[in-house]
Parts: sequence; structure tokens; C-alpha cells
Amino acid sequence: MPEFRKDPVIGRWVIIATERAQRPHDFHAPKEEPKGGFCPFCEGNEKKTPAEVYSIRRPGTSPDDPGWQVRVVPNKFPVLRVEGDVEKRAHGMYDRMRGLGAHEVFIETPEHLTTMTPLPDAHVTDILSAYQARLIDLQRDGRMRYGMLFKNVGAEGGASLEHTHSQLIVTPVVPRRVEEELNGARRFFDYRDRCVFCDIIDQEMSSDDRMVMTTDHFVAVAPYASRFPFETWIMPRKHQSHFEHSSRQEIEDLAFILKRVLRRIEGALENPPLNYMIHTAPFNVAPLDHYHWHIEIIPRVTRTAGFEWGTGFYINPVPPESAAEYLRNNPEEPD
Amino acid sequence: MPEFRKDPVIGRWVIIATERAQRPHDFHAPKEEPKGGFCPFCEGNEKKTPAEVYSIRRPGTSPDDPGWQVRVVPNKFPVLRVEGDVEKRAHGMYDRMRGLGAHEVFIETPEHLTTMTPLPDAHVTDILSAYQARLIDLQRDGRMRYGMLFKNVGAEGGASLEHTHSQLIVTPVVPRRVEEELNGARRFFDYRDRCVFCDIIDQEMSSDDRMVMTTDHFVAVAPYASRFPFETWIMPRKHQSHFEHSSRQEIEDLAFILKRVLRRIEGALENPPLNYMIHTAPFNVAPLDHYHWHIEIIPRVTRTAGFEWGTGFYINPVPPESAAEYLRNNPEEPD
Repeated sequence: MPEFRKDPVIGRWVIIATERAQRPHDFHAPKEEPKGGFCPFCEGNEKKTPAEVYSIRRPGTSPDDPGWQVRVVPNKFPVLRVEGDVEKRAHGMYDRMRGLGAHEVFIETPEHLTTMTPLPDAHVTDILSAYQARLIDLQRDGRMRYGMLFKNVGAEGGASLEHTHSQLIVTPVVPRRVEEELNGARRFFDYRDRCVFCDIIDQEMSSDDRMVMTTDHFVAVAPYASRFPFETWIMPRKHQSHFEHSSRQEIEDLAFILKRVLRRIEGALENPPLNYMIHTAPFNVAPLDHYHWHIEIIPRVTRTAGFEWGTGFYINPVPPESAAEYLRNNPEEPD
Repeated sequence: MPEFRKDPVIGRWVIIATERAQRPHDFHAPKEEPKGGFCPFCEGNEKKTPAEVYSIRRPGTSPDDPGWQVRVVPNKFPVLRVEGDVEKRAHGMYDRMRGLGAHEVFIETPEHLTTMTPLPDAHVTDILSAYQARLIDLQRDGRMRYGMLFKNVGAEGGASLEHTHSQLIVTPVVPRRVEEELNGARRFFDYRDRCVFCDIIDQEMSSDDRMVMTTDHFVAVAPYASRFPFETWIMPRKHQSHFEHSSRQEIEDLAFILKRVLRRIEGALENPPLNYMIHTAPFNVAPLDHYHWHIEIIPRVTRTAGFEWGTGFYINPVPPESAAEYLRNNPEEPD
């Protein structure tokens, strides 16, 4: 019998279609052929991107020259632009404002890799530190309200270049999906005086059912109301609302678990297209008792169709318990 | 300069990336080869589907035999099942209920066509009448709260069979996306004592900017805050909350405009994958002054990626004014 499950944070219902339950090998992610050809993200091609705004590089090397490990540049085709005022205006009954914001790209390695998972843990730590640094820097722009860090892998995942990279889009409004999460978490807190994410972590730590992996500082679980097969959330075990407030030690531990969880998903689904998003608190707010930052990883092996778009319901053919069991029991290859 | 635009009903922001503005031929929807092989929806194969629950067929022919024009059958692989009680239960801090509901398929023609647009208008009218009949019938099940009628075209659009068909999923809860629309429309009505959709229609009728097509009873527009390139909404010009309350004459007019709008989109984007959804009032509520049923058509020529999933924002590279102009000035081929 299929089952409706409700996300405890935002109240979204998901249909877990247990009768259609599928094994990882039932998902034939279309194999994407390496594109070859010129890659503007490779070492030596620094002049083909906009000038870097941040990099982690060898002492003595110059910006926009080789010698970097992680390089952050403005997106060459930004969806938003940084100049000017927001200029909120009406257009008859409609509201609009100028597309103010920032759009940056994190080039994660000078080598032409299509995923970050072959990199040493220390290198993944550098990528995550770069995320923090840019988030902190861009908050200084008082017009901006939110920074969304995300990663697209594969053409089906929305990536237009295969060289492993992630992105940051900063907006002058708090996105709707983030507002919903903040509001849901606030309602839970008002009622129980506890963080809903802390409660989720407690419940998930009390059994193996949806547990993928734990480390000293983090837990990776298949969420109870997973929208997608093999959806996995990584959450800090200690309450914290702001990703950018994580300590160096926590970021090192996050690099460890993120890389391993991604590698297990790559193993289970044969390098699927995927996205991850870092959900964190809005800009320039004090630490929040009710909100808990986390990473949502969603492999893109099913397609959303008319029903999902019309209703906001999701249909997930893989119970999170099955996904977690598979990921838990099929560890990644060692380095 | 890109622009943020706000949907006036649910308050969703969309980024219209005008600098990336693209022409219809910039979208290379992957050509989907006809699959060939056995099709359970073709005439003569009626025994390969579950027994029909409704059909429009020639007098003297029997259910599950040839002679039909439109045939409605339960989905062979339903995401929800009709038997039993909802059984709402807690699972620790989580909520779940049994996957109760109905899932039916409308086989739109006995011929193996991949779209409804070659069919005569009267045949499309039959399809829409079948939608109404099933919606009315399934409301009699007091456990159910909502019926979502939708269509998936193309593998990218989520269709698993190419023979033209649509679907109805009935659920024991009102879907979140519908609730948001009802709540947004209610807030607008409480404040202004007018239907927000009626106001949208008034504003769109006052200029050609986003107008695609009008008929006696309907208007087709590219919505101001379109999420997708060539997104088009068809709305009844006269206020009405329930699709199933439309008169025969209105349904005939709807068949006329729906077929022509779909054909124009097929022409502009070379038979793209697409979805349409009928947004209507929940089951067993009296006519609503604040809600207005409509059809949302979304061609699937761009991919949603990490940013969209993380924020709930959409990035649309085609301003609706450009899409509407193209669709308005490139009429479909006559029958």
C-alpha cells in the first residue's frame, strides 16, 4: 500500500509509492558522454573567465594565473546583476523589481574532473571554506537578503559545464522556499520550544531506519518524507542556524562526510545527475534558536511531471528506508 | 537588466533573465523517436488495460471492446489505491497516512497519435467532457478532497507511454500548491472584494502584451510571472471556480482554444515535452467568489536545477511578452 508522508518542517506531503519500489539499478540515468573540447574552468584558461573574486592558491602566484586550488569568479552569464538599486515598482496589478543580486561560480579544482569526490578531503575542505568566505563577504552588501549555495551535476541536473563547480546566487529577497522552512521551523519552536531539526536528528539517531552515516559533528539521513529516490540530508548534530558560523574543525568533518555520501550515491546510481543546496539562515540575522542549517542532496533520476507541478506533491518510488539501507551497507571505495 | 516579477496569486518570485533572452529555435527539445512496438492504448488492445470505468463510444459497442473515442481506465500502476480508510497515524514525530486515492488514465483516441492536436474539435470536446464526468463521479467518494487533472507529453514531460493520454489523481487531502493558490486568492478577495484572476484577465485584455488568443468564453495569456519559456494559461473570461460546472458550450469553446494554443506551442518549440494541469476548486465546496479555475500549460524546454529547488524561485530566459508575441503572430496550421 502506498503511503502519504508529511515533511515535519514545511508540511509538504509526499507519496511513497512502495508498490513500485525500485532497486538502485532500476534507475538508468542517461549516461552523459564527456564533452571534450575547450574548458574555461581548466588551469591555464583563467583569462577566459571573468576576473576571480576569491581563490585559494599557492603563495607567490597571482590572481587569474595558474597556481590555484579553488577559484571563485562571477558567472559569465549571470542571472542577476550587482549594480544599481532594487527599484520596486508596480506594473498595473503586478509587482516587479530590478534583477539585482550576485551570481558567482566556484571552480572546485584546476583539473578537469566531473565530480569533487576524487579530491583529497583537505581539498574538499578548501571548497567548503570558500563557500563560507564568499557568503560572509557578500552579506556586507546591505541590499542583499539571502545567499543560496548550490551545485548542479550533469546536464539533467542543470549543469552547462561538466568541470566540477558550484554556485552562489545572492538575492535582495528571502526566497519563498527558505521562508516556508523558516516559518515552519518557527511554528514548531513556538509550540514546543525545541528546534524541529534537532528533534529530527534525535529521532533518526535512535534507530538505523533512515540513517546513512554519522561523524563526530554531522549526520546524513534519508529524510522521512523524501521527495526523490536517494534524497539525503546532511545536518550538523549540534544546533546551529548559520552554515558560515561552522568552525574549521566542523568544516573538515563536513568535507569528510559530504565526499563519502556523494561517492556512495555515485556508486548506487552510477554517477547520476544531481543537485545539492545549502539551506542556511538569511543574511544579517542573529543566531536563530528555531532554524538549523543543512545540506539537501537530490539525485535527479526521476522526472517531475504534471501531477507534481500541479499539486506540489511528490511521488517517490523508493522508500527512504530502502535508500538509506543501501547507502549504509555499500560503503564507498577507499581513497 | 534581468527583472524579478511576483506572481499576484501566490506571491512566487520569478527571475526573467532578459539578457539571456532566447528565440524559440534556441530551444532544442531533444527529438524523441517514436518507440513503436506494442501499445496497450491502441484500439483492439482493450483487454491489456484494467477494465474501463467510463467511455464515449459508438452505440451498440460493449465496454472494453473497440468502438470508443475516449476511454477511461484505472492506471495499471496506480500511485494511490482506492480501498480502505485513510488511517492517519503518527510515527514518532512524523505523520503519515495510507495512500488512499484514485488514479485514472484518459486514453484520448483509439489511433496511435502522440498529441491530441490532430483530432477534430468535437473529439477534443469529448475528452474534456470525460474529464468533467470523472471529476463529478469521483467526488461522490466522501473520503476524497481533490482531483488533479493533468497531461504529460514526452519522456522529459514524465510520460511513460507515447499514445496521447491524460490522467486524474484524486487525493484525500487538498494539495499544498492548490491550498497556496486558494489562500492567495482568498487574501486578495478579502482585501479588494474582487477575484484576482478576474483582475488579471481585465489587465491582460487591456493590452496585447501577453495575450496569446481569445475566444467568446476564454482567454489564453503568457502569465506576467511565467516560470517557464512559453508557459501559457487558459482562463474562462466569466468568473467560475469549478471546471466541472462549465456548460457544454463553454467546453466546446475550450476545446477550440486548447487545441489551437497547444498546436502553436508545438509549432514554436517543435513538439516539445510539456505538461498541462487543470487547477480547479476542491471537492464538495460551493462555488467560490475568490477562486477561478484555469489550465496551466508548461512546455519543458529548460531544466530546473539546484537554485530552483533550493529557493523556489524560477529563472525564465524568455520574457512572457516575447513568448506571447511569437504565439500570437504565428497561428497554427488550419485543420
